[in-house]
Amino acid sequence: MLFISEDREYLLSAGDRLETDLGILEIPEDVSPGETVETHLGTEFVARKLRGPDLFHHFERTGAPMMPRDIGLVMGHTGIAAGDRVLDAGTGTGVLSAYLARAGATVVTYEQDAAFATVARENMELAGVSDAVDVRVGDITDHLDELSGFDVLTLDTADAPAVVERAPALLRPAGFVAVYSPFVESSHETVTRAREAGLEAIETLETIQREMDFGERGSRPSTAGVGHTGYLTFARNPV
Amino acid sequence: MLFISEDREYLLSAGDRLETDLGILEIPEDVSPGETVETHLGTEFVARKLRGPDLFHHFERTGAPMMPRDIGLVMGHTGIAAGDRVLDAGTGTGVLSAYLARAGATVVTYEQDAAFATVARENMELAGVSDAVDVRVGDITDHLDELSGFDVLTLDTADAPAVVERAPALLRPAGFVAVYSPFVESSHETVTRAREAGLEAIETLETIQREMDFGERGSRPSTAGVGHTGYLTFARNPV
Amino acid sequence: MLFISEDREYLLSAGDRLETDLGILEIPEDVSPGETVETHLGTEFVARKLRGPDLFHHFERTGAPMMPRDIGLVMGHTGIAAGDRVLDAGTGTGVLSAYLARAGATVVTYEQDAAFATVARENMELAGVSDAVDVRVGDITDHLDELSGFDVLTLDTADAPAVVERAPALLRPAGFVAVYSPFVESSHETVTRAREAGLEAIETLETIQREMDFGERGSRPSTAGVGHTGYLTFARNPV
Amino acid sequence: MLFISEDREYLLSAGDRLETDLGILEIPEDVSPGETVETHLGTEFVARKLRGPDLFHHFERTGAPMMPRDIGLVMGHTGIAAGDRVLDAGTGTGVLSAYLARAGATVVTYEQDAAFATVARENMELAGVSDAVDVRVGDITDHLDELSGFDVLTLDTADAPAVVERAPALLRPAGFVAVYSPFVESSHETVTRAREAGLEAIETLETIQREMDFGERGSRPSTAGVGHTGYLTFARNPV
Repeated sequence: MLFISEDREYLLSAGDRLETDLGILEIPEDVSPGETVETHLGTEFVARKLRGPDLFHHFERTGAPMMPRDIGLVMGHTGIAAGDRVLDAGTGTGVLSAYLARAGATVVTYEQDAAFATVARENMELAGVSDAVDVRVGDITDHLDELSGFDVLTLDTADAPAVVERAPALLRPAGFVAVYSPFVESSHETVTRAREAGLEAIETLETIQREMDFGERGSRPSTAGVGHTGYLTFARNPV
Repeated sequence: MLFISEDREYLLSAGDRLETDLGILEIPEDVSPGETVETHLGTEFVARKLRGPDLFHHFERTGAPMMPRDIGLVMGHTGIAAGDRVLDAGTGTGVLSAYLARAGATVVTYEQDAAFATVARENMELAGVSDAVDVRVGDITDHLDELSGFDVLTLDTADAPAVVERAPALLRPAGFVAVYSPFVESSHETVTRAREAGLEAIETLETIQREMDFGERGSRPSTAGVGHTGYLTFARNPV
Repeated sequence: MLFISEDREYLLSAGDRLETDLGILEIPEDVSPGETVETHLGTEFVARKLRGPDLFHHFERTGAPMMPRDIGLVMGHTGIAAGDRVLDAGTGTGVLSAYLARAGATVVTYEQDAAFATVARENMELAGVSDAVDVRVGDITDHLDELSGFDVLTLDTADAPAVVERAPALLRPAGFVAVYSPFVESSHETVTRAREAGLEAIETLETIQREMDFGERGSRPSTAGVGHTGYLTFARNPV
Repeated sequence: MLFISEDREYLLSAGDRLETDLGILEIPEDVSPGETVETHLGTEFVARKLRGPDLFHHFERTGAPMMPRDIGLVMGHTGIAAGDRVLDAGTGTGVLSAYLARAGATVVTYEQDAAFATVARENMELAGVSDAVDVRVGDITDHLDELSGFDVLTLDTADAPAVVERAPALLRPAGFVAVYSPFVESSHETVTRAREAGLEAIETLETIQREMDFGERGSRPSTAGVGHTGYLTFARNPV
């Protein structure tokens, strides 16, 4: 839950204790959204239910997390639903895993860096989805033989093409692959492997998003520009 | 569930009966994904769990439905989660409502056209989310006084600005508004009303999506071009 | 001509005298590209012919000049050619006028601000096109009755729609109008007046330009993003 | 010159003779824009001066010609001016060469296909720029040793990288290279060679252009979409 006072926002779990310059904040085990918690110096913080974009802004980061826009595109193009079993690599900050778990999916996610995995697990705790997200330390390519029966496979790692090659055995019939990559070459390689593996509906999408400015002189796209994040490659297991 | 034979796909519910040129297909009440159902002429159809993009392709349409990409952007920017209460207008084909319900949200959606609402209800049935989506016939602006306590408000109607004006009372603290509009002027009007209503984090986003072509001569964005769908305006209720 | 020494570049005309921290630089009347001129302290500057993009970088500015990309689009979509008579408003820094004159056109350009016009005239001198560009102080809408016989009309002013309305009498048969505006609303107004005036081939184009990054990890569009500059509206006089 | 009657437009030179279903049209040697020429059956055609976009629409094509927008970007980013000496390969339909010549440049252009070169020469004749454009049959890479002193080098060929490598010796100080390629990989290769050759201000630009629709319901980018044409790579010779 988020605890908010004026322009201060803290992402805390029930039972947490935080020392701030406004006093010590102890979160009761039974706090509910809308309730107020006071620091020992008397400053009030309002508890608020988390929403997805809050995770993006408040998670401890171990790298650049995937942006809400790209997470949304993964959700839209694969049709993430409650009950889905998702296989993910690499975890990173864990924003994608948390989003998917919050939409009712259970996620197995691989992270090669043990320290990053620890942070990701704490982030899942904060997001209230630790039961739904299994953060495993290791290289997913070492574990492909043990893995199967997933509805969706989401990859944000350099060796994504090697995993995509094995997608038919990892996924249920008609399950989706979604691969995020900043680069043309690795997206191309992913597409090549997806074709070789017999996947269907293969497409690589590039998304350019701009903000509109509505000012007194008129309406126009922002002069600030929004840069490239990554290509998203989707493919689907045959029936 | 989808029932698939060669290049034929039918979206059917348990108990449905369909006459096809391959024979009559009667769906048992207890069919599960992966099972096979035969027509009376002996053609086999495999049952397959639905995924979001299937809804887009198989729902009966009463207009141009929102595309998976735009639905995904709504989900990503508002952080749709299981347990969310969503207020939506206008229903249309119902693809957005079905996506949100499949991610665990409950949806109250208003459709002015009674015939369209009937089709939307059938679509919810086919998507297996009729319990989660309450399709109401009527103009949402006539019912604003009765409505409150929503986490997210999604609008795809000409009178969206008039609803946005009332968003603070419709939404829980920090709840999100998402408005889809093809046009600059109505997006501008939505932003103006959102500002007047004291909403925060107001932004109008335009999304350009292109497919990449990976061919023998090299990689390039598709020459086909992807056209404009709509502007998405997001805003958030204060805490 | 440009005079260049190490990382220093000065845009100077024959006969100019410039005091720099590297000594006083006096440009002979008969200097040619490739020749070297020494300051009185002995630092050598090489003379170099100007190219269009140099004007953009070296002109004294009285506002944000039109970018080489947008100037190029005007040249491409109107087919600027040597011998063209161009009517322009408002002059501003004068980069567009100088580009057109360098491509062999003669330009009559209106600037409402007398001080800006003076700077623009100096810029034309530096670009070597003062004979081809007639910078006039005034509001073009006060002079429309005196003007006619132009091949191309280029406008970058708030009252462009009022001038476009008069385009049929200003332009030769099949002559082009090109209007630059940052805003949707004024572009819309320009299109409306162009339609009313009976112009043909009316189109408003928006141009998004991005730089590609070719790095060791792969190729991708720049993460920096390139913002909106302006909409370009083109229209053509009937035969 | 163009000869126009109702919805019929013919690109013809002085002295040409054309048999049409409206009768035989013989163009006098001394015809001027605005004058009328009659077919032997009495249908009137008005003579009109050509503009650049007319070349794009009326030239006989030997392949997909570069679009006015991309030609304009080449002109804007290299600052094409009267008196420029341009080296070009491959000629193709010749629209780029004709545009540059019409802006006062002289062009040497290489085309490997002799039949294409013949068509290109006829196109130059029709555009009235045969004196300024020297269409040579051959592979430019076989002639690099004989070529030098150009202000701008424009390339639209598969072996552009091999020519860019030699750009420092082909171009005058501060002269520009402009390479058009539909593909990421060849643009990357061009950039690599440009870096190795010591060229400066190297950049690869991708341009997305969309038309705006101004209708009764509002303003929006066209739903039609505009596809990718090509990447443009620019670089500059050091002083």
